[in-house]
Amino acid sequence: MHPELVDTLVIPNENKIVFLIMDGLGGLPGPEGQTELETAATPNLDALAKKNICGLLDPVGYGITPGSGPAHFSLFGYDPVKNNIGRGILEGAGIDFPMTERDLLIRINFATVDKDGLVTDRRAGRIDNETNRRICWKLQENIRAPEAVEVIFQPVKEHRAVLVIRGEGLAEEIQETDPQRLGKLPLPPLALAPVATVTERILAGVIKQAGEILADEPKANMMLLRGYAKYRRYPSLYERYRLNALAIASYPMYRGIARLLGMTIAAPTETIEEEIAILKQEYQNYDFFFIHVKATDSRGEDGDFDGKVKVIEQVDSLLPDIIALRPEVLVVTGDHSTPAALAGHSWHPVPVILAAPTCRPDLVAYFSERDCIHGGLGRMPMMYLMGQSLAHARRLEKFGA
Amino acid sequence: MHPELVDTLVIPNENKIVFLIMDGLGGLPGPEGQTELETAATPNLDALAKKNICGLLDPVGYGITPGSGPAHFSLFGYDPVKNNIGRGILEGAGIDFPMTERDLLIRINFATVDKDGLVTDRRAGRIDNETNRRICWKLQENIRAPEAVEVIFQPVKEHRAVLVIRGEGLAEEIQETDPQRLGKLPLPPLALAPVATVTERILAGVIKQAGEILADEPKANMMLLRGYAKYRRYPSLYERYRLNALAIASYPMYRGIARLLGMTIAAPTETIEEEIAILKQEYQNYDFFFIHVKATDSRGEDGDFDGKVKVIEQVDSLLPDIIALRPEVLVVTGDHSTPAALAGHSWHPVPVILAAPTCRPDLVAYFSERDCIHGGLGRMPMMYLMGQSLAHARRLEKFGA
Repeated sequence: MHPELVDTLVIPNENKIVFLIMDGLGGLPGPEGQTELETAATPNLDALAKKNICGLLDPVGYGITPGSGPAHFSLFGYDPVKNNIGRGILEGAGIDFPMTERDLLIRINFATVDKDGLVTDRRAGRIDNETNRRICWKLQENIRAPEAVEVIFQPVKEHRAVLVIRGEGLAEEIQETDPQRLGKLPLPPLALAPVATVTERILAGVIKQAGEILADEPKANMMLLRGYAKYRRYPSLYERYRLNALAIASYPMYRGIARLLGMTIAAPTETIEEEIAILKQEYQNYDFFFIHVKATDSRGEDGDFDGKVKVIEQVDSLLPDIIALRPEVLVVTGDHSTPAALAGHSWHPVPVILAAPTCRPDLVAYFSERDCIHGGLGRMPMMYLMGQSLAHARRLEKFGA
Repeated sequence: MHPELVDTLVIPNENKIVFLIMDGLGGLPGPEGQTELETAATPNLDALAKKNICGLLDPVGYGITPGSGPAHFSLFGYDPVKNNIGRGILEGAGIDFPMTERDLLIRINFATVDKDGLVTDRRAGRIDNETNRRICWKLQENIRAPEAVEVIFQPVKEHRAVLVIRGEGLAEEIQETDPQRLGKLPLPPLALAPVATVTERILAGVIKQAGEILADEPKANMMLLRGYAKYRRYPSLYERYRLNALAIASYPMYRGIARLLGMTIAAPTETIEEEIAILKQEYQNYDFFFIHVKATDSRGEDGDFDGKVKVIEQVDSLLPDIIALRPEVLVVTGDHSTPAALAGHSWHPVPVILAAPTCRPDLVAYFSERDCIHGGLGRMPMMYLMGQSLAHARRLEKFGA
């Protein structure tokens, strides 16, 4: 079944759906043989799991470790392979850059090269945000845009920026220029398909100019390009599901993804408590809520098992505040696994609770990876989670006579 | 994997397959926290489950609530999305109308309109079958068929009938004419695609004539059209699987579906006991048997939890009679869930037992939704059930060298 079958069956109503997403939730056993989620004391999540239905979600497919882009597309019911979103677009969305369908978006890493042009630091000593902004302005003011395109530089953070080429006939089939090792020349932006020859010429010119403009910089005297992505418009959650969606997320990338899918974006917050406060405050104004908790993933990426346990316990302690709102459907899951043991994203499926009055109970009594295996949702491609949620919110009509 | 892969591997033999289908079998917990199936005393089904293999079937897909048409297509191994069958064909098949590939079949609801043509009763006061037949005859005798097509009226039941337009170049992309609310004019049969403009003109003419012919009727003085469906032939169970199939089903729609798939149709019966009697009587003459029990679904649709429990118990008490025939494969399941709690079809997966000497046992000891989660068949798209059954009947050869 294709996930878009549900789009043809949508019937709007007033029922509310809350997605509480602990980024990188899934884990692996630590020294005591229990995962982060199994180690955490989570009485509220356990009670919710016991009363409702659990399962394990595969974000993209068996054995596939997803980036944050595909994982979130999958969460919202967008086939993550068909809609594989380029890094450039994620970066552009993350800084709220107003993209158009004439834009080629490219991730810049500022780098340091020596007098022979060999890369000596692929991150330009992680220059600070202020230097980043100054350099982007310098480039913007001095660049001469070639061949009837516009060239736009936008700072992101530290050594990262976005390059936008705006014009007709641009293509994303271009070789990345980061040589990946020190002591090498940056690679040329070679066209990887005939359709990209004009783009290659434009980029080669922009890179050459950038090297000249930045020649007097002590650290960021070159730019490396990757993540070429032509912007295209995605159908919004409202267009697909008739859901008025609010994203409560503080990190730019997740705000960006939510924006690409037409969600309203709440003001960024510092803490999970503040995110829940926004949920309460805005509860009457929307019917779908995406609450994004970043710290589970960050602690996992740090390899900080105990830190990840603590974040999960903190979310558990706040769960009653969400339940008190009595959403018709409450989903608790992650976008992918980030086991502290691997200090990075992994391919392991992600535990999920789907709570709704129409759940047919299973025998799961604890919210943990090894319990969820026995859950009534089974092991399910993540891209079907949204359809399940819409069904339990009674927002889908019958298929066929 | 596409369900049609099995077609290429079929090797006929003498082994028999029995599908015992309790329509709408799957349920939701009642006041005691147990589903209808969990509440029912089912010693025979439990023993069968314990000795064999269980699972949960998704009729169409995660979160999708199926109509009876797609659900049964899926049971018999036909992709229910690719073969989404129109209401008109289901109605035509249900009354055993001899359809041809030149036919556009349309469901009629007779309705009452006032002197201004506004709909005052969308079901014409549910006229009786006799009135329905009389009105269809009246239409048939007085209609002047336009533009080289034939126009055929066939009564179904109460206010329901079938309109057949037979000719070349007809299309089903036509707007339904039921305004869905009282006090409104019927909608025009607008073409929804350029290919349907001729059909629009033909239908507009037929509707206008029908209004004139029925003008003196007190109740059924207009017809509303929906479920436009061009007949197309489906490959039969014999063509696909080399199965001589007998359908033992009393309700017209299920008899109709079985007929569309080339099954022989046994005479209708009043009781489940009579259905089993036919099975015994015809056991030597066929190698696939579709036994359809309607009452589980009817009680579910009524919201009658206890009534549905009783039907399941009755089926359980008759199970030994089927087992005594020693079919090589016995499948017990439903076509979809109809929880009494929802008084209608639902998206929840359906419990299944597959019994055969070649089953690899699982740990399930009771036939219930929450036990079947742990069954060896896992959670499986229903359209693969037929392939599983053919395999256990040793009717599939090895794939590949």
